[in-house]
Amino acid sequence: MKNKQQNILIIGAGLCGSLLALRLGQRGYNVSVYEMRPDLRKVDISAGRSINLAFSDRGNKAMKLVGLEAQVKELCIPMNGRMIHDAHGNTFQSNYSGRSHEYINSISRGDLNALLLDEAEKHENVTIYFNKKCKSVNFEKTTALFKDYHDEDEFVEDADVIIATDGAGSVMRKSYYLAKKFLFSFSQEYLSHGYKELTILPKVNGDYKIYKNALHIWPRGSFMLIALPNLDGSFTVTLFLSYNEGKYNFNNLTTEERVLKFFQNEFPDALAVMPNLLEDFFTNPTAPLGTIKCSPWHYKGNTLLMGDAAHAIVPFYGQGMNASFEDVVEFDAVLEKHKGDWETTFYEYEKNRKKDTDAIADLAIDNFHEMKDHVAHPIFQEKRKIEMALEKEFPKEYISKYSLVTFNEAIGYREAMLRGRAQDKAILNMLAGGVISPNDDMKIVLEKVKKETEAILEDDRIAGLR
Amino acid sequence: MKNKQQNILIIGAGLCGSLLALRLGQRGYNVSVYEMRPDLRKVDISAGRSINLAFSDRGNKAMKLVGLEAQVKELCIPMNGRMIHDAHGNTFQSNYSGRSHEYINSISRGDLNALLLDEAEKHENVTIYFNKKCKSVNFEKTTALFKDYHDEDEFVEDADVIIATDGAGSVMRKSYYLAKKFLFSFSQEYLSHGYKELTILPKVNGDYKIYKNALHIWPRGSFMLIALPNLDGSFTVTLFLSYNEGKYNFNNLTTEERVLKFFQNEFPDALAVMPNLLEDFFTNPTAPLGTIKCSPWHYKGNTLLMGDAAHAIVPFYGQGMNASFEDVVEFDAVLEKHKGDWETTFYEYEKNRKKDTDAIADLAIDNFHEMKDHVAHPIFQEKRKIEMALEKEFPKEYISKYSLVTFNEAIGYREAMLRGRAQDKAILNMLAGGVISPNDDMKIVLEKVKKETEAILEDDRIAGLR
Repeated sequence: MKNKQQNILIIGAGLCGSLLALRLGQRGYNVSVYEMRPDLRKVDISAGRSINLAFSDRGNKAMKLVGLEAQVKELCIPMNGRMIHDAHGNTFQSNYSGRSHEYINSISRGDLNALLLDEAEKHENVTIYFNKKCKSVNFEKTTALFKDYHDEDEFVEDADVIIATDGAGSVMRKSYYLAKKFLFSFSQEYLSHGYKELTILPKVNGDYKIYKNALHIWPRGSFMLIALPNLDGSFTVTLFLSYNEGKYNFNNLTTEERVLKFFQNEFPDALAVMPNLLEDFFTNPTAPLGTIKCSPWHYKGNTLLMGDAAHAIVPFYGQGMNASFEDVVEFDAVLEKHKGDWETTFYEYEKNRKKDTDAIADLAIDNFHEMKDHVAHPIFQEKRKIEMALEKEFPKEYISKYSLVTFNEAIGYREAMLRGRAQDKAILNMLAGGVISPNDDMKIVLEKVKKETEAILEDDRIAGLR
Repeated sequence: MKNKQQNILIIGAGLCGSLLALRLGQRGYNVSVYEMRPDLRKVDISAGRSINLAFSDRGNKAMKLVGLEAQVKELCIPMNGRMIHDAHGNTFQSNYSGRSHEYINSISRGDLNALLLDEAEKHENVTIYFNKKCKSVNFEKTTALFKDYHDEDEFVEDADVIIATDGAGSVMRKSYYLAKKFLFSFSQEYLSHGYKELTILPKVNGDYKIYKNALHIWPRGSFMLIALPNLDGSFTVTLFLSYNEGKYNFNNLTTEERVLKFFQNEFPDALAVMPNLLEDFFTNPTAPLGTIKCSPWHYKGNTLLMGDAAHAIVPFYGQGMNASFEDVVEFDAVLEKHKGDWETTFYEYEKNRKKDTDAIADLAIDNFHEMKDHVAHPIFQEKRKIEMALEKEFPKEYISKYSLVTFNEAIGYREAMLRGRAQDKAILNMLAGGVISPNDDMKIVLEKVKKETEAILEDDRIAGLR
């Protein structure tokens, strides 16, 4: 292929950037990656970023593309469903799917990133530079200004193409915004809630203190605690709480007494396995939860935003990493089609992809409300019971919204959202109206749900004059 | 009242700022207004801004508040409906309401602004400074930095409270964004279309060349032309067209031949009354269409964004000015309640108001599609026929979405949006399903529409678990 020797500069060696470097390395491009942080394989830099993540089918599609499926599987802890903890310490499990082969996984961000860096560096046409902070990008000239954190020197790199995978705080996206050279649509939307990471340490013998193979949730209506397992027997726990509303909030949890009282009242069973709560609480930062959307992602055939730099989302669907990995798969397919024509590649990639990343951003906010609140409602629990039964009895005929989003990587996020929301609406309304119940014959329920879902979609189409 | 002598600094003497200055002057505050432009009563500065605007009931509510209803009426040209021009030059009128006392008005931005400035300056506690450009706001210290356009001097003003009504490009909003002192949610979303202003001049005898009392629309699916009357017998015409998509777009309309051909093909009847088309087209700028949302609007009790500075919208519902005027009415009511406590006033004002300005932003985008496209669809026209009949026969029982938004100033934009959209969906679906028709007994149609609207709202409530 004629473009094998083109120079591609990638800004950011996080999960998306290191996967992209690996894939473009496999394709034979000359790839240079500049990362502001030290090499995470040599220095512990986990502080302030989420330690473990949910890994599922869309992410796995990318691992298959680069030939790492088996190696990544080694890092995974399957989570078959949500383990819901009520205020009295009672628990019940709600599976993610009625098909037993469908589950999500807890994975260490650091371990996965290290694997991708190792694999990328095996290609002699891929070079990764650490401690080099991007200061700005000149997208007209396709150059980037960096500062070396060791010697404080600033230097400019140029390339045939620059792809920024520098995360939610992307410097290249800021350059687009500030330059005002073209109409740049941009949004940053913060939730009223922030988050703080805590831990449940392993037992002295290394065992897990609570059930290993689930995503634990303590839903409390306007706030919640969750926990995901790690390979070392610990759990990473995250508290999602308003900054300034409600009786307890991050702004007023300022003393050990108040934090203890809050956990005693709301999460007594979690507190019992978190003797280290107060130290964690006052050591770890409180971080905001934001959604970022923008357009265009590219400037001509010179520069492109990918991953969180283009579309950062809140973590509640467990799809942030999976969406960024899927970006690489989608980009790779368009690149294959138009290789050599970067402008067409970038344009078509965004045109295909943005509708889906917009959808997962909105779905992730929906799931914030579902996780902290709806999962504790009887009508929602009945809906999930029906969905589990339908997925079990009719595994090829019924796919819930959660399954469409998480386990059906051949369907885009936007289609998953439209179909999934219509199904949810159909089931909830028929439950509320007494038209169906979890005790009915599921064959009949399936027909009713299908018919009502189609009617909802059709009504929406007509109302939109489409 | 104890706070009569407080100093209020207003940035921007446009429509919202001059109304606010007048109202706060009436309340006895010491008001200083700084405007970057020259005094529009002395210098013609219309270029690049829309010349005439739609004025309706929400705007009039504010004129009543400040006692200017009768004077503003003098400036108004009633528009009873849309005059739709098809591609063959045929026209038909579609009224805005079935109630004959409900219509919108075309008004000159300059004349209305001049009236508000004159009235504000009648208060000796109100001073307006022109040619003073705000460069930045220090919201911690409640000071603003200005540059004088005459002598190039920079100076700092402080005040007890700063209110920025400096429009879509607000400098204070930029100070919020850049300072990163608090979580600031912000979005700017551009449409794919831009706009350009053109004119239909009066006949030599001063008469109107096309029907005076309508908002003229030439809907063409993916683009459109509109025209609003002026008091001098002319019309201000606006072309809304994509920058880069479709056969004809702003980027490729670069020669007189192409512009003429475009108008000959698409707008022959308009072209016939626009001998000045080519001069206008190549003299006047092409401007973008954007929506701006943000939050919070205020910083503590120090500073507040109002009008377009807080929520700029696209022009398609004719509500931009009306929404900004309603801001002043809503703000005035909260001020009356909490006067002296600025932080509570600002907080409560935003809490009440933002849901409504978010809604009108979304409604305005809906109407972009309605005006350029849907108005030409048979099913949409049947819906409007039914709505006109319902409003005429049952003026107290049926209120269309357009009427809820435009003529029902006691109902907030958000409630108008939710009820209006549900009604539209009900009527369109029942028309498509053959359940109702414009020839039916309207009493029966009314009952069906009411019942179906309630069912839609209830289904949405259940699906949202509300």
